Amino acid sequence: MLVVMKAHATPEQIQAVCAAIEQMGFRAHPIPGAQRTAIGITGNNGAVEQERFETLSGVSEVIRVSKAYKLASRDVKQEDTVIHFPRTGSCPEATIGGRDLAIIAGPCSIESREQAFAIAEQVATNGALFFRGGAYKPRTSPYSFQGLGVEGLRIMAEIRDRFGLRIVTEALDNESLDHVNEWADVIQIGARNMQNFSLLKRAGKLRKPVLLKRGLSATLEEFLMSAEYVMSEGNYEVILCERGVRTFADHTRNTLDLSIIPSVQALSHLPILVDPSHGTGKRDAILPMSRAGVAAGADGLLVEVHHQPDKALSDGPQAIYPEQFARLMYEIGQIAPIVGRTLARGIHVAEPTV
Amino acid sequence: MLVVMKAHATPEQIQAVCAAIEQMGFRAHPIPGAQRTAIGITGNNGAVEQERFETLSGVSEVIRVSKAYKLASRDVKQEDTVIHFPRTGSCPEATIGGRDLAIIAGPCSIESREQAFAIAEQVATNGALFFRGGAYKPRTSPYSFQGLGVEGLRIMAEIRDRFGLRIVTEALDNESLDHVNEWADVIQIGARNMQNFSLLKRAGKLRKPVLLKRGLSATLEEFLMSAEYVMSEGNYEVILCERGVRTFADHTRNTLDLSIIPSVQALSHLPILVDPSHGTGKRDAILPMSRAGVAAGADGLLVEVHHQPDKALSDGPQAIYPEQFARLMYEIGQIAPIVGRTLARGIHVAEPTV
Amino acid sequence: MLVVMKAHATPEQIQAVCAAIEQMGFRAHPIPGAQRTAIGITGNNGAVEQERFETLSGVSEVIRVSKAYKLASRDVKQEDTVIHFPRTGSCPEATIGGRDLAIIAGPCSIESREQAFAIAEQVATNGALFFRGGAYKPRTSPYSFQGLGVEGLRIMAEIRDRFGLRIVTEALDNESLDHVNEWADVIQIGARNMQNFSLLKRAGKLRKPVLLKRGLSATLEEFLMSAEYVMSEGNYEVILCERGVRTFADHTRNTLDLSIIPSVQALSHLPILVDPSHGTGKRDAILPMSRAGVAAGADGLLVEVHHQPDKALSDGPQAIYPEQFARLMYEIGQIAPIVGRTLARGIHVAEPTV
Amino acid sequence: MLVVMKAHATPEQIQAVCAAIEQMGFRAHPIPGAQRTAIGITGNNGAVEQERFETLSGVSEVIRVSKAYKLASRDVKQEDTVIHFPRTGSCPEATIGGRDLAIIAGPCSIESREQAFAIAEQVATNGALFFRGGAYKPRTSPYSFQGLGVEGLRIMAEIRDRFGLRIVTEALDNESLDHVNEWADVIQIGARNMQNFSLLKRAGKLRKPVLLKRGLSATLEEFLMSAEYVMSEGNYEVILCERGVRTFADHTRNTLDLSIIPSVQALSHLPILVDPSHGTGKRDAILPMSRAGVAAGADGLLVEVHHQPDKALSDGPQAIYPEQFARLMYEIGQIAPIVGRTLARGIHVAEPTV
Repeated sequence: MLVVMKAHATPEQIQAVCAAIEQMGFRAHPIPGAQRTAIGITGNNGAVEQERFETLSGVSEVIRVSKAYKLASRDVKQEDTVIHFPRTGSCPEATIGGRDLAIIAGPCSIESREQAFAIAEQVATNGALFFRGGAYKPRTSPYSFQGLGVEGLRIMAEIRDRFGLRIVTEALDNESLDHVNEWADVIQIGARNMQNFSLLKRAGKLRKPVLLKRGLSATLEEFLMSAEYVMSEGNYEVILCERGVRTFADHTRNTLDLSIIPSVQALSHLPILVDPSHGTGKRDAILPMSRAGVAAGADGLLVEVHHQPDKALSDGPQAIYPEQFARLMYEIGQIAPIVGRTLARGIHVAEPTV
Repeated sequence: MLVVMKAHATPEQIQAVCAAIEQMGFRAHPIPGAQRTAIGITGNNGAVEQERFETLSGVSEVIRVSKAYKLASRDVKQEDTVIHFPRTGSCPEATIGGRDLAIIAGPCSIESREQAFAIAEQVATNGALFFRGGAYKPRTSPYSFQGLGVEGLRIMAEIRDRFGLRIVTEALDNESLDHVNEWADVIQIGARNMQNFSLLKRAGKLRKPVLLKRGLSATLEEFLMSAEYVMSEGNYEVILCERGVRTFADHTRNTLDLSIIPSVQALSHLPILVDPSHGTGKRDAILPMSRAGVAAGADGLLVEVHHQPDKALSDGPQAIYPEQFARLMYEIGQIAPIVGRTLARGIHVAEPTV
Repeated sequence: MLVVMKAHATPEQIQAVCAAIEQMGFRAHPIPGAQRTAIGITGNNGAVEQERFETLSGVSEVIRVSKAYKLASRDVKQEDTVIHFPRTGSCPEATIGGRDLAIIAGPCSIESREQAFAIAEQVATNGALFFRGGAYKPRTSPYSFQGLGVEGLRIMAEIRDRFGLRIVTEALDNESLDHVNEWADVIQIGARNMQNFSLLKRAGKLRKPVLLKRGLSATLEEFLMSAEYVMSEGNYEVILCERGVRTFADHTRNTLDLSIIPSVQALSHLPILVDPSHGTGKRDAILPMSRAGVAAGADGLLVEVHHQPDKALSDGPQAIYPEQFARLMYEIGQIAPIVGRTLARGIHVAEPTV
Repeated sequence: MLVVMKAHATPEQIQAVCAAIEQMGFRAHPIPGAQRTAIGITGNNGAVEQERFETLSGVSEVIRVSKAYKLASRDVKQEDTVIHFPRTGSCPEATIGGRDLAIIAGPCSIESREQAFAIAEQVATNGALFFRGGAYKPRTSPYSFQGLGVEGLRIMAEIRDRFGLRIVTEALDNESLDHVNEWADVIQIGARNMQNFSLLKRAGKLRKPVLLKRGLSATLEEFLMSAEYVMSEGNYEVILCERGVRTFADHTRNTLDLSIIPSVQALSHLPILVDPSHGTGKRDAILPMSRAGVAAGADGLLVEVHHQPDKALSDGPQAIYPEQFARLMYEIGQIAPIVGRTLARGIHVAEPTV
């Protein structure tokens, strides 16, 4: 159920409607738009009396929402969600979902301070505003490297201070979620946890942006429903990320489903990024698929960069070299204006020689 | 790495080898077989000096295990794993993985004491030894019924006492895992959590059998690796369960991949069950696919039964009626001896009239 | 559109309705059932005036058929289609789709007279009534063995005379279709040609049963639509065959989708067989999946048998040995009565020693 | 087997080696490159004596080709295959696989002279050099519109004369192949016929370019093997086309697998196009996925355009309007130089107002 307020409803009227909703035992989610405010109602597992809201002051109309997702739906909020990161410390202002392409780059895993700093320097120099690196790694085998944990988070916090890069890193469970929430700027929830509803709910109680990766066999509806889990707890800053799905095709590690970009944009107001590294698993496919992702209209990229991929403790074959990242930034910088985008740090006027 | 002891190695020799392994900073997993004991070594993320073990007393040979899974592998343990449930209270002796087919039946969700008792009575009468019912439900939508929680567990504990049925129920996260461990006989880990490695590890620290469902797009190797996560923490009682995978085929909700039964049996010693309810999502397909599962060699079935499926709070369309369950038991009882199996309660001599 | 005749409509009335349909520029397909005759109308790409038929003599009702397939639908013909092969020459009477399980066995390819005879003898001895063997082979590589062509068909004709086995063999194109039609008893159309509509139509013009294999990524609707192509040309003797579909799962060559058996039986009156050889591609999976197919309710099996699979020119790894085939026949003979079936040659009372 | 000639081998030496190969009962396929000529040997189902070639005059080395495809492989021919269409009649010079992006546009089916001309005019005006239109339609249902046949081909021949557009149209079987070969410039083989080996071989005997669409569940290896079928008969002008594959994802009709572009380019020298119309089945996804395809490095696009898609006899929902096509050409014209491409008719300097 969605209560749509009149265009000129006052903040007091909005607050009064929310209070009425809560009093009835539901949750109220005010969603301010450019033209009007809508208020999503959740927690209603059955009939809610529509009439009780229609007569409240400032209410324009009440809509029954038929789709299973509500808060994630463009029906509820027409304007694109733009996540703002204000200038803080050494970090410049940044956005995800706005005009600037959001470029999140870094190694699969934080392996050591030296490795992370070496990569972060390259990534910052070439124009990324976000640094990614795994401190907690979901590995198929219990015998594989599982990440440095809090030590990895500490290294990334230093990187933020030193290079002005915001930190995106994955949380696996309640414990790591608390740590990631403490140290990072964006909480990543991985593909294997896309339907870990317990983790989603807990992330929804935090007030930090959540980057949610599509599950390996998730439909678009399921993907948006998982975003809805986070949002239904009150955290509306969800960033979607396509990272390839599982199919019979064996020429890439996964099949990168770029057509989900226009599909998401039609149904939802949430930003959608592309991860060509996990999406293909092949270094040589990352540059073309990054260009393709931006050309398809993605709000940004999540890409693995490693200065010594042959020595990486995880996923080396899908990491690109820093000089390839420089070329990637150059090329997507060329495509950006064609799709109405910009690169935040407009420094890539010269074509790299590689 | 696997240390194979000589056929007549003494318990003291075995213990000494385990101690040596632990002293080196690894974990030792003694695996007693009918002929010989093998000791799995885990925690070795690099080179282990093979020679250090070969010279220990009672050691026959040391094998580098090339497959990513070790403890789940039939190379490591040739005999089928049989999980024993000794007679306790009102519950008769039972096994999973042995000659008896393990039949686990009950509703998708525990909705009320009345509903659960009505179904449990039917299930017990028709020969099942295990009762399934969800107290914590992983639902695609945050607005769907999420289960009764501890109250559901309490109802099931009553059912155990009253009907002599052992309880199988799903844990979703650390908190529910603790509760399920306290109240249930078998901890179920659902398809969506098959690669929730944090939950797997924690379940591995418990000493209660774990029923692990195959993920919607899990390869056999990934499935066994997830079992390995549980086993690598010391809990060797893992029961695998095929519940359908996600494909393009739309005539059933999922595609039930019965051929995984012989594939699992070739590679692993763990028991493998079939869930035709989630595997097909269609009431009319459950009887034929139950017969097929038993004929293919499964160690048992996990099947949803509801006395009023049209009123079920979750997954009604895939639940069978009690009288259909009676026919199911009759028919698989006929097939069982052809594949060298028996039904524990050999009561189904008369063909139901339905 | 479907014209349903009254229960006691005379042959003359039926003929008159057919004539009226044809006069309007459509095709009439009389479908005699045990209770009543229905007449399918095809060729109507738009509106047909329903009323024009309702007033004809002997007509009970006229039904708009919403499903895309008509002739293949159980709505149109409620009774199972049973394909009869009368006693001829050395061949006993046989059926596909009736009470007897239809067992079609033989090598992937006819490689030589000696090879084919050796296998045929085993197959006949162990109770099959149908012999399969490829004379025209659809091979992924143009450089692989492509079959013996007409010579292979001649060898199979000899086998029919000598062993009383009916011949099932694949046609690839118009030319081979003519040859297969001349020499064989059942025309097989392979998975890769399931949507070769030109070939389907041409096979529909013949008056010989067509065994249609499911395409590697065909939905049930597409599968039935392909049967409809054959039937819409007047050949109503279509036998469906599940042979595995393509999924991400890599433990078998394809994923054998046995749940299509109850799904087909709900929607269509056509017989459905299972091919566990192509469906799994693994010798050790064939026996369990054959049992499972029969237990799921299949009308029979299509199975590859080779006396020297290691020397086979094609698909050796998925052929079973003659002694494994003997065991297969024994075991499915045990399961048959549980699902209301029989084996035609009831000779397998003794359990093989293998 | 591949015979690599010396850099300066004479035409006579090359001819002599070919003759020697043919004399041994194989087929010789001379493949002239910029640096050297290689000669593929096909028809060898077993051991070929390598030494017999190494001693021939002008031979540099003899390579055993391990991959199943040879002629399609970049190992055999390093330079990209560029298909040249010389200026003829009203048609300007054109290429597929070269620097110019090849844009093939037009309706799904030729429905009438008026419809085809109306669309062709728009397509030509907006810069396409190739016109697509179906005269023979492979339809899932036998009751759907099957195309105008030869009449459709005649209309397209008129379009070539009138608008200077080269004609690309599908052949379904031997009969339509003969007609298409007579009337069209490029023979299309559809996804459902990708493994119709009989049709592939016959197309290989012709001397007209073949546009081969990827099958709905074809691996890259199978795709290239199908190209090999055409090439092994001597027709080396094969154009590959990605058109979406079948997966569980339901937000688009198929899943467009753009990552096959870099994968094809790594393994093969053949051109690869993208069909975003079949690949997505959604009008609104065509523009973004066209941009993405070009950005990923495709050699061109195959796109459905209809001036009245709501009245189209087939696949209306996936056709774009002429004004959308104008925008598409404008946008890919902007992306082209970033990936080293050009549009043949460089007329799109002004941004469309739509």
